[in-house]
Order: sequence, then structure tokens, then C-alpha cells
Amino acid sequence: MSAQHIGIFGGGQLGRMLAQAGLPLGLQCSFVENTPDCPAAVLGPVYPSGQLADFAAQAEVISLEFENTPLADVDRLPADQPLYPPRLALATAQNRLLEKALFAQLDIPVPGYRAVHQPADLHAAVAALGLPLVVKTATGGYDGKGQAILRDAAQTDIVWQQLGAGQVVLIAEAFVPFQREVSIIAVRGQDGEIRCWPLAENHHHEGILSHSIVPAPDSDGLLADAQAYISRLLEHLQYVGVLTLELFVTASGLVANEMAPRVHNSGHWSIEGAVCSQFENHMRAVAGLPLGSTALVQPCVMINIIGQHPRREAILAIEGAHLHLYGKAERPGRKLGHITLMAAEPDVLRERQRIVAQCLPNPLALLKYANVFSKKPGNCLTF
Amino acid sequence: MSAQHIGIFGGGQLGRMLAQAGLPLGLQCSFVENTPDCPAAVLGPVYPSGQLADFAAQAEVISLEFENTPLADVDRLPADQPLYPPRLALATAQNRLLEKALFAQLDIPVPGYRAVHQPADLHAAVAALGLPLVVKTATGGYDGKGQAILRDAAQTDIVWQQLGAGQVVLIAEAFVPFQREVSIIAVRGQDGEIRCWPLAENHHHEGILSHSIVPAPDSDGLLADAQAYISRLLEHLQYVGVLTLELFVTASGLVANEMAPRVHNSGHWSIEGAVCSQFENHMRAVAGLPLGSTALVQPCVMINIIGQHPRREAILAIEGAHLHLYGKAERPGRKLGHITLMAAEPDVLRERQRIVAQCLPNPLALLKYANVFSKKPGNCLTF
Repeated sequence: MSAQHIGIFGGGQLGRMLAQAGLPLGLQCSFVENTPDCPAAVLGPVYPSGQLADFAAQAEVISLEFENTPLADVDRLPADQPLYPPRLALATAQNRLLEKALFAQLDIPVPGYRAVHQPADLHAAVAALGLPLVVKTATGGYDGKGQAILRDAAQTDIVWQQLGAGQVVLIAEAFVPFQREVSIIAVRGQDGEIRCWPLAENHHHEGILSHSIVPAPDSDGLLADAQAYISRLLEHLQYVGVLTLELFVTASGLVANEMAPRVHNSGHWSIEGAVCSQFENHMRAVAGLPLGSTALVQPCVMINIIGQHPRREAILAIEGAHLHLYGKAERPGRKLGHITLMAAEPDVLRERQRIVAQCLPNPLALLKYANVFSKKPGNCLTF
Repeated sequence: MSAQHIGIFGGGQLGRMLAQAGLPLGLQCSFVENTPDCPAAVLGPVYPSGQLADFAAQAEVISLEFENTPLADVDRLPADQPLYPPRLALATAQNRLLEKALFAQLDIPVPGYRAVHQPADLHAAVAALGLPLVVKTATGGYDGKGQAILRDAAQTDIVWQQLGAGQVVLIAEAFVPFQREVSIIAVRGQDGEIRCWPLAENHHHEGILSHSIVPAPDSDGLLADAQAYISRLLEHLQYVGVLTLELFVTASGLVANEMAPRVHNSGHWSIEGAVCSQFENHMRAVAGLPLGSTALVQPCVMINIIGQHPRREAILAIEGAHLHLYGKAERPGRKLGHITLMAAEPDVLRERQRIVAQCLPNPLALLKYANVFSKKPGNCLTF
């Protein structure tokens, strides 16, 4: 018997779009979120984290839209209540050391890395992995926060201080000279069936996803590896729902960056651009329903609306533009919505992208294409 | 300045799907509906008809999903509050005599018809228009209720009695020997722009729409006339929003049956099957936003779920099937949801339709194709 009521940790735009996708399938959602007027609130009841028992009592299945959902909260749920994705996936994604170890265990290429517990570990990492070295907190980082790039060995102790001086464990990663970043998104059903969407090529601006191009150009040779890697993760974790894997494209093939145990910004194009979206398929999977087709309807560019709203009139006047606003107030760096552009012809798609760029308050990111350093987070300190 | 809050008369599945389409555009809806747990209630506040002033106060623009919205209610709205579609369109659609007169005025072919105020009028209509004669109440009919087919002149007085014996004005229409029924749906923006979706071919079972095939097969030669007819209506009425025109296909071309001043069941395919759906374009139009493309994404069959729910698992296992449930309890003859099937190849589409038919509690209607008398309402008395 499939579920009717899904409880979701997090009530942001991902929760909102999950609930929207669930509604026509007869699925009702509720949310754990401490902001009562969160984006998802228009679609279901919102519980503060202090009312977890009430939240859990009315849901048959628990899921999440927020990868930093506290494990302590998850552990307060009734032991027999299904949690999709499973706790192991969440715990692994919340710790970069566990995540890298799992990738390596499953023969998914990763940059060389070391755990850093004390300054000597960081010096040893420089010696072993070379410079530049990417240093991150093993837990809690987000959108480039809690990260630094170490380019000069003389600055090693400053980086140690900047990243908390031992308050949290760090991870030091060899810098990957990547050509571009792609992501693969896949869904696994309760029966073990796996379906993958086409690869997205992701472009960042100031550390935040700016836009994704789908299918990622010139990626036919990458797809089989990407599908194999994410399938290994899904099967090993006995995963149910949507999983995202970010990958660097390098001269020697794909290298895993990180995974997100949830629907992902680089998959928003799938609402219109795939037969069945990442949101609907996640809801189908966690409810125990059959999966839908992940086939592409038409090539897409998904463009984030960040910090400031464009004029709705201008965006909606663009043929093939689909607008998705999240009901959020403007704030610098905040994701307020996205636009999915579709067109059968690449030239038409690029022209529409150019027009959208003119309508956005900050179109700079859109005018940059595959830039080696575009992934460098704006919040990321460089030494 | 475009609107943010749309008030909608009616809170059924059409209101629900309008609100769903409005949400990503930043449009909030509220509804007038005397059933608090109506299908639209999950998406916005519901006001009983006794609280029209409160309903009107929070909306910038008023629209409707229910063509029998009482004019008396409309007339209680503030005079300066925009109503889309306009009152004239609503008043015309609510009276078959006004509707036929408008069609005739705009050179849109209609069956011969007569107003019937007394028994002598009905006898005169038989003499003038011949038999069979379709007799309907001029106002208030729905899904075949308030209709009769008169085949035998000796039964004329019985029909007169059956249809209220003068309590309401009747209309007598010459029987149209139609080959099939098609509908055209179009939207007109506040700037006067008009866009039409492809023609749908509609199949009925027991007086209720069973399924629609889009584009209507072999309809290239019909499209120009259909577009011309609906465009004349939209312009004459200074219409804003979505309008539907049902048309009979006859040996001598299209003949207008009736219009619906709202989104229409035969347009539900457009959620997935058109670049911009009837729901989104209606919301765009009434909010004063630019219209979206009405182009077809892929050929579709839209199948109504009537009376009894199928197993969700069975429907969702069908490749290319999109399920839309309305959150309604089962009841004979009630529209509970719909399924949109898509496929690039007609053969694949037909095969998927056959599989859906096997999953539905009452698949009979689906197995019938273009049937001359399939439009004969189940509730329609025959004499």
C-alpha cells in the first residue's frame, strides 16, 4: 500500500516544489521548519522542530529537502517510521570525510584528501597533495562557507586559524584542475529501480549556482561513468528517493565533488524539461509508487533568480520561458526563484538565454560560460 | 502593474488547477465556494457566498471557474473591481438563447433554433426545424440535464411537461447530424492578444466527457474556421482569460454547440501537452501578464477519471502517463481526476490508451471512438 501523507524536513523552495508535485498524485505534505511563513507553508502545515512528535504522527513516511537536517532530529522519530533517504545517506552527506571515503570505497574517483585534526596534519597534507590545496570544514559548510584555498605554504597556519583552529575537523583536498562541473541526478524506487536524468552542466557565480545547461554539452562520453557512479551510491546506501552527485570534468575523466541526498537546484529544469520531474519522482519513490520517465522533453537552460526579482512581465514575454517564484523576500545572494528556458534548437536557446540575462538585475554570471574557476566560491578565502 | 491576488468564483478542480498554475508566477488565489473542503481549499482561503465582501476585499482581480456563477453575486462586487471574463460573457454563456443569438450575429454557424415560451412555440418549432428536435432549458442546464430529444411530433406536449411546462424558457434546436465534436480553447490577454491551442476531439460517455484527443485527428482543414469563430467571440466580448467553444463537425463544416467562459475539461491535456497550459495562461491573462505559447509539446490523450478511482500504482506504471487527482470522494458520475497520456507516435499513444482503459473501473467509453451519438447525454430524455 502506497503512502498518502509525506512529512518533509525543511520548508524551503525544494519542499514547496515537492509538495506541488505531490498534490496531483493525491499526496499531502507537512514540513518541519522554524520559519512559519516559509515557501512550503502555502502547501501544507508547518511544524517547528520542537513539535517533531506531532509532525511524525500525521505522516506515514518521512523525507527531507535539507541535507543538514540534524541527525538528532531524525533519531527522535519513531524507529518503525520509514525515512527516505535513509539515515546512512544523510549521515554520509553531512560529513565530507565519510563522503569521500564512501566514494573511494565504491571506486568513484575522488581528489586526494586528508583529514586534518591539528596543524601538523595540514602541513603534511600540503607535502602529500601539493598546492593549491582546498581546505574545508568536514561538516556544516554551505555555498562556499567554511572553505579556503591554500596557494602558499607559508599561509598554512593562517588557514588553520581561519577555519576554526581545531574547533571542527577539516578536510584537505588536492585541487582538481577541472574543465567544468556537471551533476547527475537519479532516483531509486522502493523496489530498487533506478532512473537517471540527463547530465546538467553547472555554472556558478559568487559561489552560488547561476545556471545549468541540460543536457550538458559534449557529455555523451561522460554519461555512462556518471550513471555507474550514482547507481553504486544508490545501491550501496539502499537509497529511496532522489540523489544528486556533483562531478568535475577533468582531462582524465570525471572526479566526484560531493553528493546531495535530495532534489537539487541543478534539476529544476526537469519540471518542464523531463517527462517526470525530480520532484514528482522523489514523491513517487518515497510514497512507494512506480517511477516516471526521466527522458528529456527538450533541451533546457535553468537560470536562478538570485537576490532581486526581475520584472515578471519581462520574463513571461519570452517565448519558452517558465517562471518559478518561491514566495521569498529579496536579500543579497538568496535564491528567489528560477527560470527554465526550453527550445529545440541550440541557437534559439542561447538567444533566449541572452534575453533573460538582459532582464535579470545581475546578468554577469549568465554571460560567462564554462569557466575553470567559476566554481570558486565567493565566500571562499584564498591564501 | 500586474495583479498578485486573484479571487475565483468556484473552488472545484478547475479552481485548484488555476491556483496551482498561479503559484509559481507569484499569484495567490482565494475562492467563493460553499463547500469548505472543496478541491481548491488546499491552495487558498475559501469564502462562503455570504462573505462576498471579504472575498472581494482581498483580491485585486476577480475571475471564475464556474460558468453558472450567479450574476447576482457578480453584481455585488465593487463596480471598479476588474472581472475577467467580463459580465457580458458570463451572462451570454448562461443563456442558450443569448448565446445562439451572439453566434449568429458574429456569423458563427449555429443549428436553426427557436425560443419556446409556450406549447404553441414548440409545435411551431417542430414545423419549422423538423425532427428530431433538441429541446433544452435556456438557462441552468448541465451535463445533459434539462434536455430532451423529440423524435415524434405526437410527444411534443410530454416534452413540454418534462422540461418544466413554462417555468423556464426553452430553446428548440434543429438536430445536427454531426460526425464528431471538437473544441477550441483560446486565451485573450488584457492587451487584446489572442492565442489558440490545437483542436481537441471530444468523446463522451453517459453525457460526461470521457476523453479528448489532441490534436483532433484529421482537423487541419477545420482549424482556421475554429480560430476565426473563437477570435470573433473574444474580440466582441472584449474577453480576458480563457474561453472554450464546442463545435460539431458536420458534412458542411463546423457548427457551434456552446461556449464555456472558463478553462475547460477538454483542455486539461495542456498542463503537460502544451508549452503553456490553459490554467497558466488564464492566470497570466487575468493578472495582466504576457501570454505564454500555446504550442503543442507532443500529441496527447486526456482521459477523465469518473466515479471511482483507479489504482494509482497501475496508472503511474504506464510510461508517459500523468496523473491528476482532485482530492474528491468517489460518487457515480463525478469527475475525480484525469490522466494525460503523451507519445510522439500515434501507435504508441493508442497502445497506452488501451492500457489505461484496462486500469479504469469503467473503460467502456474509452473503447468507443468517434461515435455519432456519443454526445447524447445519459440524462437526456428521448421521446
